[in-house]
Amino acid sequence: MIKNKKVNAAILIIGNEILSGRTQDTNTGTIALWLNSIGVKVNEVRVIPDIQDIIVDTVNHLRKVNDYVFTTGGIGPTHDDITAQSISKAFKLEYQIHKEAFLILEAYYKAGEFNEGRQKMVWMPKDSNLILNPTSGAPGFNVENVFCLPGVPSILKSMLGGLQNRIVGGEPILSHTISLKTVESEIAKSLSNVQDDNKDIEIGSYPFFQAGKLGVSIVIRSEEQSKIDKCSKEISKFVDEKNIEVVDR
Amino acid sequence: MIKNKKVNAAILIIGNEILSGRTQDTNTGTIALWLNSIGVKVNEVRVIPDIQDIIVDTVNHLRKVNDYVFTTGGIGPTHDDITAQSISKAFKLEYQIHKEAFLILEAYYKAGEFNEGRQKMVWMPKDSNLILNPTSGAPGFNVENVFCLPGVPSILKSMLGGLQNRIVGGEPILSHTISLKTVESEIAKSLSNVQDDNKDIEIGSYPFFQAGKLGVSIVIRSEEQSKIDKCSKEISKFVDEKNIEVVDR
Repeated sequence: MIKNKKVNAAILIIGNEILSGRTQDTNTGTIALWLNSIGVKVNEVRVIPDIQDIIVDTVNHLRKVNDYVFTTGGIGPTHDDITAQSISKAFKLEYQIHKEAFLILEAYYKAGEFNEGRQKMVWMPKDSNLILNPTSGAPGFNVENVFCLPGVPSILKSMLGGLQNRIVGGEPILSHTISLKTVESEIAKSLSNVQDDNKDIEIGSYPFFQAGKLGVSIVIRSEEQSKIDKCSKEISKFVDEKNIEVVDR
Repeated sequence: MIKNKKVNAAILIIGNEILSGRTQDTNTGTIALWLNSIGVKVNEVRVIPDIQDIIVDTVNHLRKVNDYVFTTGGIGPTHDDITAQSISKAFKLEYQIHKEAFLILEAYYKAGEFNEGRQKMVWMPKDSNLILNPTSGAPGFNVENVFCLPGVPSILKSMLGGLQNRIVGGEPILSHTISLKTVESEIAKSLSNVQDDNKDIEIGSYPFFQAGKLGVSIVIRSEEQSKIDKCSKEISKFVDEKNIEVVDR
């Protein structure tokens, strides 16, 4: 395991239903939080339509500029599920029946229920590594640094655990949130000074409106707890000087 | 108004908080549904971090290959709000005080409250067109085909109405959903035949699990109602032949 190395990933959401606004993507958050916990930072997310050439070009770009790529969607049995074909084309691999996946689904379904539609789900790029699916049988697949997961959030979630030992992350990305009863403009200058003082730390400022309360959450992110602690102290200092009410720190 | 022309857009979500999984983006859905209603189709969504070079390069790419680009996030008063600078750089325009925006915010805040932090929000690319903000004062801005909106969903939502007459869309994109009590594999082949028969129509198939019910929603999208009706009929035909229970059609 290589540690202390920055490891990054892209998430590629494949699906017209997200682009049309019909379906709210939640897989980005699920994958991002899981990746953070194993030391992988998400650099970029793209949502693209179910169009083969776009999938091929996007995957071929993203896999070259990121350590890992996670795709979601398009691995079901219907005509609009074209992720497996597209990944085969991207890697110039044959698109064929995956024997192990066939055996898994043959065992999963009752006799006679492993029909033509379902058999489509065992067609994958040659020599794919399977990503097991404890929820609904049909596995995802992995070629080199590209991991293809389904679009249904509950199924996707159940598959991430089994992937953990195939992703080599860096140090987990830690974060600390300080929530204040104030507005951003009140702290903008002081916070900017803290950021200038701590250039290698990610400090974000996010206004919130909750139950009629107006506030700001400051989020500090780094792989090093000591750096987060130093930043927190500097922020606490100006917050106390300004007599700003602290909701949480 | 040019009608009968396909008009497309990209959405660019700017913000580390989405990439880290801390915040769930909902602006994509809001913008996409609104755009569909005025005949603009979303081709692509990207989520990128608060890094100037990445914002500049991404905006410069997206604005060339789409009729419109909508950005969200990064137009507040804090150090991590760098959208206005980045758009200035992308268009090689000066980043300067926008006089009209200054007057709006000066009038919006009580005397003495239009402080340095808030004044940052009136710095924009030279000659930007303002996008008025009925919720919290600070306007967004528009340069050529790029429209920059805030990240806070309620504020963004309130600003879209005022944009309507500045976007020239094509025919509104219509959709019809047929919901069935079945599984995708059961209808995959018949649905694929309907798609082959109607190549210029977008037919999507989406499994759902709701209140213990397993089902599939078939979504038909087109600018032409007659084409949607034709597809619906063909789908209804095989659904009835297969004795599949219809939840909604």
